[in-house]
Amino acid sequence: MSHQYSIAIHGGAGAMSKGQLSPEQEHEIEQILQGIVDDGLKSLAQGELALDVVQQAVRALEDCPWFNAGKGAVFNSQETHEMDASIMCGKTKEAGAVSGIRFSPHPIDVARQVMDSSEHVYLGGEGAEAFARDQGLPQVDNDYFSTDMRYQQLLSARKAHASSSEVILEPTKDDYKHGTVGAVAKDKHGNVAAATSTGGIVNKKYGRIGDSPVIGAGTYANNATCAVSATGHGEHFLRHVVAFNIASRIEHLNESLETAAKAVVFDVLGSTQGEGGVIAVDQQGNVTLPFNTEGMYRGWGSDTEPAIGKIYE
Amino acid sequence: MSHQYSIAIHGGAGAMSKGQLSPEQEHEIEQILQGIVDDGLKSLAQGELALDVVQQAVRALEDCPWFNAGKGAVFNSQETHEMDASIMCGKTKEAGAVSGIRFSPHPIDVARQVMDSSEHVYLGGEGAEAFARDQGLPQVDNDYFSTDMRYQQLLSARKAHASSSEVILEPTKDDYKHGTVGAVAKDKHGNVAAATSTGGIVNKKYGRIGDSPVIGAGTYANNATCAVSATGHGEHFLRHVVAFNIASRIEHLNESLETAAKAVVFDVLGSTQGEGGVIAVDQQGNVTLPFNTEGMYRGWGSDTEPAIGKIYE
Repeated sequence: MSHQYSIAIHGGAGAMSKGQLSPEQEHEIEQILQGIVDDGLKSLAQGELALDVVQQAVRALEDCPWFNAGKGAVFNSQETHEMDASIMCGKTKEAGAVSGIRFSPHPIDVARQVMDSSEHVYLGGEGAEAFARDQGLPQVDNDYFSTDMRYQQLLSARKAHASSSEVILEPTKDDYKHGTVGAVAKDKHGNVAAATSTGGIVNKKYGRIGDSPVIGAGTYANNATCAVSATGHGEHFLRHVVAFNIASRIEHLNESLETAAKAVVFDVLGSTQGEGGVIAVDQQGNVTLPFNTEGMYRGWGSDTEPAIGKIYE
Repeated sequence: MSHQYSIAIHGGAGAMSKGQLSPEQEHEIEQILQGIVDDGLKSLAQGELALDVVQQAVRALEDCPWFNAGKGAVFNSQETHEMDASIMCGKTKEAGAVSGIRFSPHPIDVARQVMDSSEHVYLGGEGAEAFARDQGLPQVDNDYFSTDMRYQQLLSARKAHASSSEVILEPTKDDYKHGTVGAVAKDKHGNVAAATSTGGIVNKKYGRIGDSPVIGAGTYANNATCAVSATGHGEHFLRHVVAFNIASRIEHLNESLETAAKAVVFDVLGSTQGEGGVIAVDQQGNVTLPFNTEGMYRGWGSDTEPAIGKIYE
């Protein structure tokens, strides 16, 4: 069955265990997810473009301190925040990506600006910030992104790593909770789009970059196949080129969106114990949200299905 | 026909016109390419791993001032050098990548170190440098990479851009000459590997990152399909996820290495006027080196074919 329009969002997948959140917190998060989907559905109903709608949804997720992107991003080892984001339009196959963002309240807006106002696809670090400033995008102090919940998470990550005197590069399993935010949508005009944004891994060192700003790994969109936004253990998503991997199965093997996404999330990622999930939509408006972790903050809806927000299976 | 071992290298593809180089210069470059292939063949004959051989070949290309990587990398708009590199092992599908390298004489060595000695795949900017230092890799002043030829190229790029008072983001066609270096190999043990390194685009601003450090776009390796290193207009290579695109055609469509590589270089990249080429090798030791530009600095050889270096078709 095809849909006039549809949207899916995620707020990260991970090893969150049932019971870690109070029932009230679970309900609050599900309501937030549902609300963001609902806003997206309203925009899509009015004929807005998928590209704009996924950007708006990711902005809203960045603004919500529950999720590891924008406000509420994790702390790195230097007690600051460095964020990555990317966006791709399935109609034009144009894309924008940034990594190492520190002073732009909405990293996804910088990615969009790279796509719209530069000849480049991917800008990194100081340069990406300079571009955002030169383009007149709003700037904030880095501590704008700080929340007490994330600071406690940093302290707990340090404690977990404190048993070793050496540089710790391997994040604990705990570090992957609530990893990323993202959105995919199909609009009334038959276009799909995808957007992803993240604060990365808590206590991260050495300018570590995951899959979120990488077109093909964390984000991909093509009207001919699908739009995908990924979340999980970024190193595995990079090595398996997850988002494009799903699109290529649809293109070459004629798999359905759901079959292709499940094959990559369970079989391909599973082959290296890569934890996480994806959200994906195709030009018929089909939506799928597979994950191989205990939970994934997610929401979805379409012209015929009201917005819903969920955490566990 | 399958080969015990084989190797291919590139020193960039672009719009170099016949006649821009003197016959003596052409001969010198072809000899250099042939020599690097020859060294690779000797190592492969001795049973060295493809992963080590592609790293060694890229180191040699980085050391050669003719090519835009390592010594001889282009100048960015601030008259310094910022380099990107990545490497991937087809056996383990492990990978390492770095961007924004300024003080490591061999960016490919930093990428390999990320793969071997960190739990991460991709480190960017200051962090990647700090990692290289902490790991005891050699450090040089940034002007180690400077050559007069590249400085003249910067001046000429500035002149070409000087007609506009605004920020110039679109590089001139001239900027893409000699873009990148890379190597792919198949070893006696049946493994493939790929490595890529670049100085990026002359006069680049804003921390622009192309496809070279991006696993799936500029570099990909998988024993089950192929190893690929790409060179060209990086933005197009990112959007089309070129290296993995070739691998996925082999996996899903059962295309030969040559058919898959040509389809992506001519049809997929051609669809957006993306200029460049790739080198690729599969587990049978087949080698292909298609490019849609006038020339590509390249060389190849195998257990049954002596080393050869070429520039034009």
